[in-house]
Amino acid sequence: MLRHVVMMQLTSEATDEDAAAIVAGLETLPGLIPEIRSYSVGRDAGLSEGNFDIVLVGDFDDEAGFRTYSENADHLAVITERIRPVMASRTAVQYFID
Amino acid sequence: MLRHVVMMQLTSEATDEDAAAIVAGLETLPGLIPEIRSYSVGRDAGLSEGNFDIVLVGDFDDEAGFRTYSENADHLAVITERIRPVMASRTAVQYFID
Repeated sequence: MLRHVVMMQLTSEATDEDAAAIVAGLETLPGLIPEIRSYSVGRDAGLSEGNFDIVLVGDFDDEAGFRTYSENADHLAVITERIRPVMASRTAVQYFID
Repeated sequence: MLRHVVMMQLTSEATDEDAAAIVAGLETLPGLIPEIRSYSVGRDAGLSEGNFDIVLVGDFDDEAGFRTYSENADHLAVITERIRPVMASRTAVQYFID
Protein backbone atom coordinates (compact mmCIF):
# COMPACT_ATOMS: atom_id res chain seq x y z
CA MET A 1 0.00 0.00 0.00
CA LEU A 2 1.27 3.47 -0.86
CA ARG A 3 0.29 6.35 1.40
CA HIS A 4 0.30 9.92 0.09
CA VAL A 5 0.38 12.71 2.68
CA VAL A 6 0.12 16.38 1.78
CA MET A 7 0.04 19.50 3.94
CA MET A 8 -0.94 22.93 2.74
CA GLN A 9 -0.44 26.34 4.21
CA LEU A 10 -2.86 28.91 2.85
CA THR A 11 -2.12 32.56 2.19
CA SER A 12 -2.97 35.14 4.82
CA GLU A 13 -5.72 36.37 2.48
CA ALA A 14 -7.43 32.96 2.36
CA THR A 15 -10.81 32.89 4.08
CA ASP A 16 -12.52 30.21 6.11
CA GLU A 17 -14.74 29.62 3.07
CA ASP A 18 -11.67 29.08 0.88
CA ALA A 19 -10.38 26.40 3.25
CA ALA A 20 -13.81 24.77 3.52
CA ALA A 21 -14.08 24.72 -0.29
CA ILE A 22 -10.73 22.93 -0.57
CA VAL A 23 -11.77 20.27 1.92
CA ALA A 24 -15.17 19.83 0.27
CA GLY A 25 -13.57 19.58 -3.17
CA LEU A 26 -11.03 16.98 -2.08
CA GLU A 27 -13.72 14.99 -0.29
CA THR A 28 -15.58 14.47 -3.58
CA LEU A 29 -12.59 12.59 -5.01
CA PRO A 30 -13.06 9.18 -3.34
CA GLY A 31 -16.44 8.99 -5.08
CA LEU A 32 -14.84 9.81 -8.42
CA ILE A 33 -11.52 7.95 -8.38
CA PRO A 34 -11.84 4.22 -7.66
CA GLU A 35 -8.09 3.85 -7.10
CA ILE A 36 -8.47 5.66 -3.76
CA ARG A 37 -8.53 3.05 -0.98
CA SER A 38 -8.69 5.42 1.98
CA TYR A 39 -8.86 9.20 2.11
CA SER A 40 -8.90 11.61 5.02
CA VAL A 41 -8.82 15.39 4.78
CA GLY A 42 -8.69 17.71 7.77
CA ARG A 43 -8.29 21.30 8.81
CA ASP A 44 -5.83 22.11 11.53
CA ALA A 45 -7.44 22.08 14.98
CA GLY A 46 -5.48 25.07 16.25
CA LEU A 47 -3.73 23.21 19.05
CA SER A 48 -0.15 24.10 18.09
CA GLU A 49 1.63 27.24 16.93
CA GLY A 50 3.03 27.35 13.41
CA ASN A 51 1.00 24.48 11.99
CA PHE A 52 -0.07 24.25 8.37
CA ASP A 53 -3.78 24.62 7.57
CA ILE A 54 -4.95 21.49 5.75
CA VAL A 55 -3.73 17.90 5.61
CA LEU A 56 -4.64 15.01 3.36
CA VAL A 57 -3.83 11.33 3.97
CA GLY A 58 -4.66 9.05 1.04
CA ASP A 59 -3.94 5.36 0.55
CA PHE A 60 -3.52 3.55 -2.79
CA ASP A 61 -2.73 -0.03 -3.73
CA ASP A 62 0.47 0.96 -5.45
CA GLU A 63 2.32 3.67 -7.31
CA ALA A 64 0.10 3.20 -10.37
CA GLY A 65 -3.01 3.96 -8.32
CA PHE A 66 -1.36 7.05 -6.89
CA ARG A 67 -0.35 8.24 -10.37
CA THR A 68 -3.90 7.73 -11.65
CA TYR A 69 -5.18 9.86 -8.77
CA SER A 70 -2.53 12.52 -9.30
CA GLU A 71 -3.40 12.93 -12.97
CA ASN A 72 -7.18 12.59 -12.62
CA ALA A 73 -9.02 15.52 -14.19
CA ASP A 74 -11.38 16.04 -11.24
CA HIS A 75 -8.40 16.12 -8.89
CA LEU A 76 -6.56 18.58 -11.10
CA ALA A 77 -9.67 20.78 -11.22
CA VAL A 78 -9.73 20.99 -7.40
CA ILE A 79 -6.06 21.93 -7.42
CA THR A 80 -6.43 24.54 -10.15
CA GLU A 81 -9.71 26.09 -9.05
CA ARG A 82 -9.67 25.81 -5.28
CA ILE A 83 -6.16 25.13 -3.98
CA ARG A 84 -3.68 26.99 -6.14
CA PRO A 85 -5.33 30.43 -5.84
CA VAL A 86 -4.93 30.43 -2.04
CA MET A 87 -1.95 28.17 -1.38
CA ALA A 88 1.20 29.63 0.16
CA SER A 89 3.19 26.41 0.79
CA ARG A 90 2.85 22.67 0.27
CA THR A 91 4.79 19.72 1.65
CA ALA A 92 4.31 16.07 0.73
CA VAL A 93 5.61 12.58 1.41
CA GLN A 94 4.65 9.26 -0.17
CA TYR A 95 5.63 6.13 1.72
CA PHE A 96 4.93 2.43 1.61
CA ILE A 97 2.88 0.96 4.45
CA ASP A 98 2.00 -2.62 5.29
CA MET B 1 -10.02 10.94 17.77
CA LEU B 2 -7.24 13.45 17.22
CA ARG B 3 -4.74 12.80 14.44
CA HIS B 4 -1.28 14.36 14.55
CA VAL B 5 0.64 14.52 11.27
CA VAL B 6 4.23 15.76 11.03
CA MET B 7 6.59 16.02 8.08
CA MET B 8 10.31 16.61 8.35
CA GLN B 9 12.85 17.71 5.81
CA LEU B 10 16.39 16.78 6.79
CA THR B 11 19.49 18.83 6.12
CA SER B 12 21.59 18.07 3.06
CA GLU B 13 24.26 16.74 5.44
CA ALA B 14 21.91 14.13 6.96
CA THR B 15 22.81 10.55 6.08
CA ASP B 16 20.68 7.53 5.38
CA GLU B 17 21.64 6.31 8.86
CA ASP B 18 20.42 9.55 10.41
CA ALA B 19 17.03 9.12 8.76
CA ALA B 20 16.84 5.44 9.75
CA ALA B 21 17.70 6.35 13.36
CA ILE B 22 14.84 8.86 13.46
CA VAL B 23 12.35 6.30 12.18
CA ALA B 24 13.63 3.63 14.57
CA GLY B 25 13.52 6.04 17.51
CA LEU B 26 9.96 7.14 16.76
CA GLU B 27 8.85 3.55 16.29
CA THR B 28 9.81 2.73 19.87
CA LEU B 29 7.24 5.23 21.16
CA PRO B 30 4.01 3.21 20.75
CA GLY B 31 5.55 0.67 23.15
CA LEU B 32 6.34 3.39 25.67
CA ILE B 33 3.36 5.76 25.50
CA PRO B 34 0.00 4.04 26.05
CA GLU B 35 -1.93 7.10 24.86
CA ILE B 36 -0.84 6.33 21.28
CA ARG B 37 -3.75 4.57 19.51
CA SER B 38 -2.17 4.29 16.08
CA TYR B 39 1.25 5.31 14.81
CA SER B 40 2.82 5.14 11.37
CA VAL B 41 6.23 6.50 10.41
CA GLY B 42 7.65 6.43 6.91
CA ARG B 43 10.46 7.65 4.75
CA ASP B 44 9.65 9.26 1.45
CA ALA B 45 9.55 6.75 -1.39
CA GLY B 46 11.20 9.07 -3.91
CA LEU B 47 8.26 9.19 -6.29
CA SER B 48 7.84 12.97 -6.44
CA GLU B 49 10.20 15.93 -6.70
CA GLY B 50 10.49 18.29 -3.75
CA ASN B 51 9.01 16.00 -1.13
CA PHE B 52 9.97 16.09 2.52
CA ASP B 53 11.92 13.12 3.93
CA ILE B 54 9.96 11.63 6.82
CA VAL B 55 6.29 11.61 7.80
CA LEU B 56 4.55 10.56 10.98
CA VAL B 57 0.80 9.92 11.38
CA GLY B 58 -0.30 9.36 14.98
CA ASP B 59 -3.80 8.96 16.43
CA PHE B 60 -4.88 9.78 19.99
CA ASP B 61 -8.21 9.63 21.79
CA ASP B 62 -8.21 13.34 22.41
CA GLU B 63 -6.13 16.45 22.93
CA ALA B 64 -5.02 15.25 26.36
CA GLY B 65 -3.55 12.09 24.88
CA PHE B 66 -1.73 14.11 22.26
CA ARG B 67 -0.35 16.45 24.92
CA THR B 68 0.87 13.52 27.00
CA TYR B 69 2.67 12.17 23.94
CA SER B 70 4.11 15.56 23.05
CA GLU B 71 5.59 16.04 26.51
CA ASN B 72 6.70 12.44 27.07
CA ALA B 73 10.39 12.21 28.02
CA ASP B 74 11.18 9.35 25.61
CA HIS B 75 9.58 11.31 22.79
CA LEU B 76 11.51 14.45 23.70
CA ALA B 77 14.73 12.40 23.78
CA VAL B 78 14.14 11.24 20.20
CA ILE B 79 13.54 14.83 19.15
CA THR B 80 16.59 16.18 20.96
CA GLU B 81 19.04 13.41 20.15
CA ARG B 82 17.98 12.19 16.70
CA ILE B 83 15.72 14.71 14.98
CA ARG B 84 16.85 18.19 15.90
CA PRO B 85 20.53 17.72 14.90
CA VAL B 86 19.59 16.92 11.29
CA MET B 87 16.25 18.66 10.76
CA ALA B 88 16.00 21.47 8.21
CA SER B 89 12.22 22.04 8.21
CA ARG B 90 9.11 20.70 9.91
CA THR B 91 5.41 21.06 9.14
CA ALA B 92 2.53 19.74 11.22
CA VAL B 93 -1.25 19.56 11.40
CA GLN B 94 -3.51 18.13 14.07
CA TYR B 95 -7.11 17.41 13.09
CA PHE B 96 -10.11 15.63 14.49
CA ILE B 97 -11.23 12.47 12.73
CA ASP B 98 -14.28 10.27 13.24
